[in-house]
Amino acid sequence: MKSSIGSKVRLTVFGESHGPAIGCVLEGLPAGHKIDFDLVAQQLSRRAPGKDKTATPRREEDLPEILSGVLDGVTTGAPLAILIRNNDTRSHNYDDLKIHPRPNHSDYAAWVKYGGYNDVRGGGHFSARLTAPIVAAGAICRSILKEKGITLGGHILSIGNVCDKALDPVRISAEELENLSSKLFALNLPEMEEAMRNEVEAARMAGDSVGGTVELAAVGLPAGVGNPMFCGVENVLANILYGIPAVKGVSFGAGFAFPFMRGSQANDQMYYDEQGQVKCRTNNCGGITGGITNGMPLTVTVALKPTPSISAEQQTVDLAKKENSALKIEGRHDPCIVPRALPALEAAMAIGLLDILAEDGKL
Amino acid sequence: MKSSIGSKVRLTVFGESHGPAIGCVLEGLPAGHKIDFDLVAQQLSRRAPGKDKTATPRREEDLPEILSGVLDGVTTGAPLAILIRNNDTRSHNYDDLKIHPRPNHSDYAAWVKYGGYNDVRGGGHFSARLTAPIVAAGAICRSILKEKGITLGGHILSIGNVCDKALDPVRISAEELENLSSKLFALNLPEMEEAMRNEVEAARMAGDSVGGTVELAAVGLPAGVGNPMFCGVENVLANILYGIPAVKGVSFGAGFAFPFMRGSQANDQMYYDEQGQVKCRTNNCGGITGGITNGMPLTVTVALKPTPSISAEQQTVDLAKKENSALKIEGRHDPCIVPRALPALEAAMAIGLLDILAEDGKL
Amino acid sequence: MKSSIGSKVRLTVFGESHGPAIGCVLEGLPAGHKIDFDLVAQQLSRRAPGKDKTATPRREEDLPEILSGVLDGVTTGAPLAILIRNNDTRSHNYDDLKIHPRPNHSDYAAWVKYGGYNDVRGGGHFSARLTAPIVAAGAICRSILKEKGITLGGHILSIGNVCDKALDPVRISAEELENLSSKLFALNLPEMEEAMRNEVEAARMAGDSVGGTVELAAVGLPAGVGNPMFCGVENVLANILYGIPAVKGVSFGAGFAFPFMRGSQANDQMYYDEQGQVKCRTNNCGGITGGITNGMPLTVTVALKPTPSISAEQQTVDLAKKENSALKIEGRHDPCIVPRALPALEAAMAIGLLDILAEDGKL
Amino acid sequence: MKSSIGSKVRLTVFGESHGPAIGCVLEGLPAGHKIDFDLVAQQLSRRAPGKDKTATPRREEDLPEILSGVLDGVTTGAPLAILIRNNDTRSHNYDDLKIHPRPNHSDYAAWVKYGGYNDVRGGGHFSARLTAPIVAAGAICRSILKEKGITLGGHILSIGNVCDKALDPVRISAEELENLSSKLFALNLPEMEEAMRNEVEAARMAGDSVGGTVELAAVGLPAGVGNPMFCGVENVLANILYGIPAVKGVSFGAGFAFPFMRGSQANDQMYYDEQGQVKCRTNNCGGITGGITNGMPLTVTVALKPTPSISAEQQTVDLAKKENSALKIEGRHDPCIVPRALPALEAAMAIGLLDILAEDGKL
Repeated sequence: MKSSIGSKVRLTVFGESHGPAIGCVLEGLPAGHKIDFDLVAQQLSRRAPGKDKTATPRREEDLPEILSGVLDGVTTGAPLAILIRNNDTRSHNYDDLKIHPRPNHSDYAAWVKYGGYNDVRGGGHFSARLTAPIVAAGAICRSILKEKGITLGGHILSIGNVCDKALDPVRISAEELENLSSKLFALNLPEMEEAMRNEVEAARMAGDSVGGTVELAAVGLPAGVGNPMFCGVENVLANILYGIPAVKGVSFGAGFAFPFMRGSQANDQMYYDEQGQVKCRTNNCGGITGGITNGMPLTVTVALKPTPSISAEQQTVDLAKKENSALKIEGRHDPCIVPRALPALEAAMAIGLLDILAEDGKL
Repeated sequence: MKSSIGSKVRLTVFGESHGPAIGCVLEGLPAGHKIDFDLVAQQLSRRAPGKDKTATPRREEDLPEILSGVLDGVTTGAPLAILIRNNDTRSHNYDDLKIHPRPNHSDYAAWVKYGGYNDVRGGGHFSARLTAPIVAAGAICRSILKEKGITLGGHILSIGNVCDKALDPVRISAEELENLSSKLFALNLPEMEEAMRNEVEAARMAGDSVGGTVELAAVGLPAGVGNPMFCGVENVLANILYGIPAVKGVSFGAGFAFPFMRGSQANDQMYYDEQGQVKCRTNNCGGITGGITNGMPLTVTVALKPTPSISAEQQTVDLAKKENSALKIEGRHDPCIVPRALPALEAAMAIGLLDILAEDGKL
Repeated sequence: MKSSIGSKVRLTVFGESHGPAIGCVLEGLPAGHKIDFDLVAQQLSRRAPGKDKTATPRREEDLPEILSGVLDGVTTGAPLAILIRNNDTRSHNYDDLKIHPRPNHSDYAAWVKYGGYNDVRGGGHFSARLTAPIVAAGAICRSILKEKGITLGGHILSIGNVCDKALDPVRISAEELENLSSKLFALNLPEMEEAMRNEVEAARMAGDSVGGTVELAAVGLPAGVGNPMFCGVENVLANILYGIPAVKGVSFGAGFAFPFMRGSQANDQMYYDEQGQVKCRTNNCGGITGGITNGMPLTVTVALKPTPSISAEQQTVDLAKKENSALKIEGRHDPCIVPRALPALEAAMAIGLLDILAEDGKL
Repeated sequence: MKSSIGSKVRLTVFGESHGPAIGCVLEGLPAGHKIDFDLVAQQLSRRAPGKDKTATPRREEDLPEILSGVLDGVTTGAPLAILIRNNDTRSHNYDDLKIHPRPNHSDYAAWVKYGGYNDVRGGGHFSARLTAPIVAAGAICRSILKEKGITLGGHILSIGNVCDKALDPVRISAEELENLSSKLFALNLPEMEEAMRNEVEAARMAGDSVGGTVELAAVGLPAGVGNPMFCGVENVLANILYGIPAVKGVSFGAGFAFPFMRGSQANDQMYYDEQGQVKCRTNNCGGITGGITNGMPLTVTVALKPTPSISAEQQTVDLAKKENSALKIEGRHDPCIVPRALPALEAAMAIGLLDILAEDGKL
């Protein structure tokens, strides 16, 4: 079981939800980059639980310790290791889960794969808690990208039936993305926040949960980055984004709207802008053609399933007695993972983009 | 630029649309497998152009020559190389494209990346023609999977606004998938064929093209295969599927329907079936939880953009004169790539699944 | 800069000699293995400094903390992270080295590569101290190998001009290797210890250092493990062994004696032994033909350069003033790295062999 | 079984000695490089059999066909595939080998690994014939390196007991290396040729074979290229060099002479030369410290075992009857592989160096 990804910039994640610590190692960073510790703290804070009613009340300070790869606040080029200690673990809540796998959780699949030896407490290595070091690593990658003129961000596109407005794929600005990425509940139309929170609260009150979608974007990427075939921008980003728990769909540009289009609608007409740059009138391709950037903003849409931990009684099996069984999940859970998944998805995208640029010798 | 993928079973693709030949190398196959040459021919035939009005009239025999890795029709365990010569190339049609990049094609992005040295004839290495060796390689992987009791297949889920019925994710059978995979125009409801063909023909008559979706599925996969994080079944399959031209979205199970669901709807309730196997009442997860198979059928939906080559005049740039320009694309093109992309997507899925199984020591 | 290796079993090392901590992540271990903590402690103790006059007097307790991947002393299959805090660091000794690179050290090469941002204190990420987590990881791999009937070990083959007797490559036993691997100063002929220690002491008294060779071996490897070409046993082991500081030569079996041989001497004649196993009368090939194990003991010889840190005044450059300069290295150093490198080389071999076996689906 | 190597520049080799063809795919080449076809032909000619009495009389024209990645003689950046058809195969000579494995050949190890399904004719995928596409690929990499000011070459350092003089590791010149690399029987001291040929002829007359060593070198490599730990120059080169058949030892710089040295002898004293470049008075480190180039010439020594195919009767087993057996090898064989292995080793080094440079973004 490998929990690492990346070719030139490589991320390795370790830890379990209720083990002593979680963390990651980030290899391949350029030397000489001054870490923006405020950005790291800000992004971790967006992901941290216990902030409001959309999230689990579990409280973790999530103070990351950088163990290596940084001297006097500046990257050395050596592997950068990040450590986050676990504190508020209440493992007695999970004792029963090994034999009663939770629907839509990894429990049963992991039980088969690891012969029952996997750490099931809090989801173990499968827990969304593991996104904390990814967010920290992503914040570092993000500030390296910013030095190269590349800005990324995202927003909640929908929760349940409540939708935010999509970004304008032709006119997205760096300021807009930075602003979104500083928010706890990032929306393109802030006036949708109340309706979305109501959607989450309604699910929470019903002992239920709700899914959603997230839109990610990046501007400032030079044209000509990426590859055809299997190492294209879409391949690399889809691969890393599917590493964030609850992701069940990833699309680029117009994505799942393309199938309904004719070529004459879908094709992004090209022209020279005033700066002599080749641009497109529309951006259905989401900034990528043939796996390679074309200089337009990069846009990605991600579908997230509802948190599987709900209060309602569910049907499962008893793996010890080999019989059907009912299950009531206790413990603290997120009624909607979308707001906290957003910074993790942005982080994953930042790490993926940095790897793509490094592969192309652009760092 | 790497055009290879895979960890244990590794595919490397080479060639250009109008070069002397295309082909691939497939490493990591088990020794002792008898090649099913009929299946290879059948699958190549599904992908071959010139079959009907949905496809380009370019004719290629696409006779694959196996150069290595096979002795007396049986795999030796050494890398298996496949060669397909190009014959019907009409390169004069493409002379103009290097300076007049086609909208939604790789032309401009590749021109920047390769400094204008890329082979633009027929799309060069970016051409969908490169899926021919992938289909041949996939057919070999498919018959190895079959020996392990795993069957995969797929169908056209939609073209434009005409939709086929989705497979029943709980009850998909091996026979059903094999039957679909033997068809040129694979549909779950064959009665939809006429309406779909009409949709394509309408686009073709208008000098236009049209997009679509494809649904893929696999049955017989044992539970417990895959990984958390970045090497999960979804990560690996999304990575390889995005290698097939025109793919702009990949989702698993309920995919982009999950965001609208509550957890209580989404969760697949578990039980023991009569054979003592753990099963789910529904299969929204598409057979994967936590990146690992759970013993239910695997289902994937893929969104394809419309073929970008259309007859209508389009806006582009003249990269030589650095000015805006109009473009009329001549040559032979597919008004709808979906029927021919389907066998390529199935092949990619077969190769990806074989790699996942090999990684888990299950070959 | 990547500091990771391995395909299926993957090791990622992080840390600097005088940073807060060093450590590693080991991915791909099988679940259900009970960690032999005594073996980890024993092997770390062999590598630890300050034990006798052959080594630097720097004292480090080197207590490894396992952060993840282990529950109740048993591997879970998740990445296993090991953390070792640095304590006895005296960085003031090294302040001068950034501008005065030490001959035969990484200082100058790293200064160029990292633009001067690398951590030069104690050698930073290049320090032999980084072998501590490798030794800990190797001890875990070693006990997994032992469960599979595979035992490895090694001994000091030479220091300066004093040579130990080579192992009998045909008759090496598991007991012999285990016995050697429990020793601080492992020799095939223990009576050579005094002469070897005298060789080191003579160098130390002269403010100098001395090189040596190490012989490694493994028994119990099944025949048929490995690959032709670039993923053979020799390729994989040479790759990982060159990761241990001071290694400048790696050979297998008769190694650098082969060039002087005729085929008729070199060829290992084959026969069936009493157990019906195919064996060889001699073992010049060191258990590997065509990159694949043949069932004979695996033997490797490694050449180590003398520790470059010596007391004598040396010629170097002043990178700030861009002029030639003299250098006197202060601080604590090993007059001979060979005894402490041995457990690190054994560990590297254990990790490499586990990866090879995992790749072949033999775990 | 993977037969590929490389991170950014990746080589995949396919084929069997007596199959229809051998070849390779080279990914990651920069676009815009004009292929030096004369150099490709020259290097293949050095490797080709049938040239003189040191080699097998098997005759192969070895005309490589470039199938992809090149347009009008210039690289496009797409994967470059090379095909070489096999012609002069006499497979009847090998029919007996599957059950009578040849000592020191891969036969038995491969038989176990592949369950007897491997192609044993002429050594199949294990044959030194597979170095032909490596030599062709290496020639292309070599001319790309030359554009970057990097020249490499090598010579026969010894055959049996006859030794050539080693290159002066401080003063090796590009001209010297180019001159050596244009020779069929490359020697630093051409006057040694007769004695060496006599050594080979003596072995041949005795129905025997003889081993040797090769020295490789590269000049013009910038300082600061490579990595610590497992991705250093030594790791990468050792990994690829061990992919050439018969290699049993690889060392860098003073290599296996280091163990006998004191630090005061071994350390390469540093100074600024007249061009303001940091240089060393000696070059025991062979141009690499800490896995990274230091601007001095790179030197490597490789030990090759004697060709295992000899005429003398040998002891082996009969795998069908499970009993001991005698073996007389018929067919055409090289009494000494060293002269033909030299261009293959140079090619492997060129490919490895290009990958290292590409990884560092230096292409």
